[in-house]
Order: sequence, then C-alpha cells, then structure tokens
Amino acid sequence: MAAGPRADTRTKGGSVLALSGGIGGAKLVLGLYRVLAPHRLTVVANTGDDFEHLGLHVSPDLDTVMYTLAGVANRDTGWGRADETWSFMRALENLGGETWFRLGDGDLATHVERSRRLAAGRSLSEITADFCARLGIAAGLLPMSDDPVRTLVHTREGVLPFQQYFVARRCEPVVTAIAFDGAATARPNPAFLDALADPALAAVVICPSNPFLSIDPILALPGVRAALAACRAPLVAVSPIVGGRAIKGPTAKIMGELAMPATAAAVAGYYGALLDGFVVDEADAGDAARLELPVSVTRTLMASLDDRDGLARQVLALAERISAAAED
Amino acid sequence: MAAGPRADTRTKGGSVLALSGGIGGAKLVLGLYRVLAPHRLTVVANTGDDFEHLGLHVSPDLDTVMYTLAGVANRDTGWGRADETWSFMRALENLGGETWFRLGDGDLATHVERSRRLAAGRSLSEITADFCARLGIAAGLLPMSDDPVRTLVHTREGVLPFQQYFVARRCEPVVTAIAFDGAATARPNPAFLDALADPALAAVVICPSNPFLSIDPILALPGVRAALAACRAPLVAVSPIVGGRAIKGPTAKIMGELAMPATAAAVAGYYGALLDGFVVDEADAGDAARLELPVSVTRTLMASLDDRDGLARQVLALAERISAAAED
Repeated sequence: MAAGPRADTRTKGGSVLALSGGIGGAKLVLGLYRVLAPHRLTVVANTGDDFEHLGLHVSPDLDTVMYTLAGVANRDTGWGRADETWSFMRALENLGGETWFRLGDGDLATHVERSRRLAAGRSLSEITADFCARLGIAAGLLPMSDDPVRTLVHTREGVLPFQQYFVARRCEPVVTAIAFDGAATARPNPAFLDALADPALAAVVICPSNPFLSIDPILALPGVRAALAACRAPLVAVSPIVGGRAIKGPTAKIMGELAMPATAAAVAGYYGALLDGFVVDEADAGDAARLELPVSVTRTLMASLDDRDGLARQVLALAERISAAAED
Repeated sequence: MAAGPRADTRTKGGSVLALSGGIGGAKLVLGLYRVLAPHRLTVVANTGDDFEHLGLHVSPDLDTVMYTLAGVANRDTGWGRADETWSFMRALENLGGETWFRLGDGDLATHVERSRRLAAGRSLSEITADFCARLGIAAGLLPMSDDPVRTLVHTREGVLPFQQYFVARRCEPVVTAIAFDGAATARPNPAFLDALADPALAAVVICPSNPFLSIDPILALPGVRAALAACRAPLVAVSPIVGGRAIKGPTAKIMGELAMPATAAAVAGYYGALLDGFVVDEADAGDAARLELPVSVTRTLMASLDDRDGLARQVLALAERISAAAED
C-alpha cells in the first residue's frame, strides 16, 4: 500500500482483488464471493501449475477456483467436480494411457474445450472469461498471465515439474529451491495490473495458499511486486500456517526444508514489506503479538460455508480498519 | 481372384481378410471372428470417415470394429461403447462446446490417447495394434492407410465433410458425387497388401457396408483394386441392400440419387469384376438368379449373435465352394 489519502478506497462498495492458488485459496475466494456483491470480486489465479497432459492444457488452480465459484466443485477432494464420473480414466487405463493424474469425465470437457480454443488462437484469459460467463460466475477470474509459466521444484532428487512433484511424487522429495520457468518474460495479465491501479480498489487479499508454490509464481511476474507496492489499497494476507502446520498441502514441510520455522510469523516475514495486514488463526495469537503490522486473530479453519464467510468478513474488516487508520 | 491352381487356399485353415466400414460391416466381422479361429481373421477398416474433432483424432469405423471385437460395443446404437456415461458431453455443452458429434466418456479415452500417440509420432496402425492387444483382440485390425484420406460428399447443397453429411445433416442433402481427398497419394496399409499376397489367404470378404461411403475409400487407394484382382483367394461380397432397402444408413438413398436402382444386383454390378461371389438376402432371390456369378441366398439380417455367425458361415461356405470349383 502506498502512503497517501485514500478517501474512496474503503472496502464498503469498493472492489476486492484476491490472489489465489487452488484448494485452500479457493475456500476463502468463495467466502469473499458470498459476502461481497459478486461483481466486486476479481480473482487472480496461479497458472504456474498448468501443464500439458495427454495432449491437453490443464490449469488446475484456475479450474479449482472456477468450479468453486460456479458451485460445481467437489467439496470432498477440494479439486475436480462434484457428482463426477470416471469412465474416461478406467478406459484410458485399459488402453495403457497415463493415469497418475486423475481427470474426471466432466472435468475433461474443460481441458478439451480450452485446448481446442487455445489451438484456435484464443487466449487463456478470453477462454476463462467465456467459461465463467457460461457457468454463471459474476466475479472476475483472471489467469495471472496468458504466457506460459511453469513451476519447477528443485529437490534433492533433481528438478521436477510441479505436477510430478505434487501429484506423482506426493510432495515427498526434499525441496531445495523453486523456480518459475518463463516468469521473467511472461506478461502479467493486463486486467490484473489495471485492477491494482483502479482507484476503486478497496483491498488486495493474499489467500491462505502455499506462498512458495501458489503465490510466488504470481509475484514473480515482471512488475507485479512494484504494482502491489504502489497500490493504494491495503494488502492483507491470510496465514496458511495454523499452529505450526498447514491445513492441507506441503507448506509447512517446504518451510522446514527451506530452513524457515513453520510459523505464521515466518509467512508474514516471507511476504515482508508487501503486507499491510495479516490474518492469523487463534492458535497463533502468540505469534501475532510479535508482528509489527496490523493483525487480526480469528478462526481460519474453513470447514463449513459459514467458516468461509466468517473469515472473508474478518479479512475485509481488517482491510477497512487499515484504510480507516490511513485516512485519519 | 486370379485364375490358376489354388490347392492351399481353401477356407478351412486359411486366413480371411474382411473389408469393413462401421456398424453393418462390424456385425459380420464379429460373426467371422466368432466362427473362425480368431488369429485367422484380419479386418481392414475404412478411415475415410476419420476427422479432427475438438482437437482430437476420431476414427469412427475403426473404433466401431475395435469395440465390437473387444466385446465392449454398444449393441443398441451400433456405435460407441456399452455402459457408457455422458458427463463429458453435458459439461461440454455447458461450456459452449460443439455437441453435434456425441463422444461418450469411455470412448473419449480412445480419442485422447490415440491423438496423444499420433502427436508423439506413432502411426495409426501401431496405435490400433496396441489398443487391440490391450483389449484382448486376437484378430488383426488394420486401418486402410496410415495417411489421411477424407471422404467428401458432394451434394446439391455443396461439398460436405463426411461427418457433416452423415451426423450433423443426417444424410439429408442429395448426393451428386463422393470424393476421397488424399486417396490418390495415400499408401495402402502395407499389411493389407501383404495379406492379399499371402498364399494362405482363403477368402476376401466385402462386408455389407455402404459401397460408396465405406468400401470405395478402401478401393480408391493406389494399387488396391489391382491387388484384389491379382489375389488368388475368392472375393465374396455381402449385399447391404435387402428387398430394395438398406438395413441401416443411406445406401439405398444414395443409389437413388446416383441414378442406380436400389437393388442387390446393382450393388453386384457396382463392384463388377472384383467379385467372385455374392451373398444376397432371401428377399432378393429373384435378383440373385439373374447374376452371372456364384451367389448364395440366405438370411442376411443380423439381429442376433446367431445371425452373425450364420451369415459368416454362409460367406465362408460360398468362398470355399468357389475355391473348390476353381480347383476342379
């Protein structure tokens, strides 16, 4: 958040921009979508997880957010679609195809139709916008870039493409570094930069996604850190670490491997000067007290829809509080 | 069939080569597969119907024969797989994708995996052989060519790609001519030509497929007519016309549009000198009497599995009778 007057940037009525990865981030995104007027929310999704599989372009994080907002996500798995069938995978296995990455029958339509349109020259942004319109999603959903960025996980067992690390190897190899192939030359989604420069922007929210695998790819795009720093709206992150553990996924494990304490405070330290505010779980109230920035302590576990709504309200309230303080 | 001694070409023990399109042809193919020792049968399938759809390579006739031989075909529709689910098509429709050509969820695995392997440089023949092995098919199944041949239907409403004519337009436009784009330079499957030259070949069977849309593409490949004429084994066709009508599909309609009588005799006349024998339905016994070649009159409708077996036996018996007569 840049210093200066912000009379028109109060959360009430302004727009909200959320940066998100897949499962954990999508939960908060849904809460924000439910408590805000839908058109006030724009979500920027990580595409560093995207990959070519079976000849199809697969965008796991983008799809998780899209299915979540459309109300068709599988709540049990966190990925894929509800009421899914699996005839394709069974038949593929019988034909000797690769089955380590599970694609449901309905989900497959997204990948086939997106791949067809990409081959026909449409951009990932255009395709995503059209899919969202057809699925009745009123929020904006932006891939972080239309250019390919591929997350490469450097491990003690060599460099692994993200899905090899995440799905095929179940995050078991010890991480030594993470790189974002293509990020240096990829152009951030122009609508993302426009949203950050919009005077009506009331808050930027970093969802409780994996900072290294889901948020860093977005921050690695040229100009994004500078645009976030220059943005007049407060930037609030939600800790993905609760009581020293990640709710889901390898965040805590990776922090240990990268010689960081697996604490909420360490996450805040990692985001550093980007943050204007931080939301931590009640389990980390002690951690919170030591942070030198506005902090909200609340329940961050999002088991129910009410939990999602409640956390979204806390996040927005913290952003408002920061904006109000800056005005005074 | 070339003249000359054929001591080793009796059907008993020899191999059988069947030329087939989709639904109707596949029924007789199944009968042949069931009454012959499985390894004695090789099927050459039309690939003029193949097309690129949703970015995937689809081979409708090849797949109908493959699913039929594997015992996974949908007997009700004649195409696609039994016990199929349709989640993909429903989701695709919601995303605004093309739904005029129905692809079931299990069926889709064939198209996705085949497309992936084609893109990786494998040939349609190699892929088909591997799929057949994995599906437990002991017969040989050969695409007529690994090179693209595309059937174009010239109609009063313009030139239509085959599937546009057949599926999207339900064969309604009046046909004026049929062309096989690419056939002049396509190389017939070498295994097809090898099978025709094999001294152990006991019979060539033209299945009761559409002569214009399913068999002509095979005959249009360079060298195929000459190889069939030079082949020592008898060539026996089964009439797709029964009592002036086609069992299924537009054969009779097209014959009318091409100014041919829709009769079994006209089909025999169309195949002309290629034929050594012809199998017609009991309904066409009168037609049969006027033909100047060995004819078998039998029930050609294949409602049950027994019907398929019975017709296959009749076809093989006619071929044997022709071979025996040539020996005498």
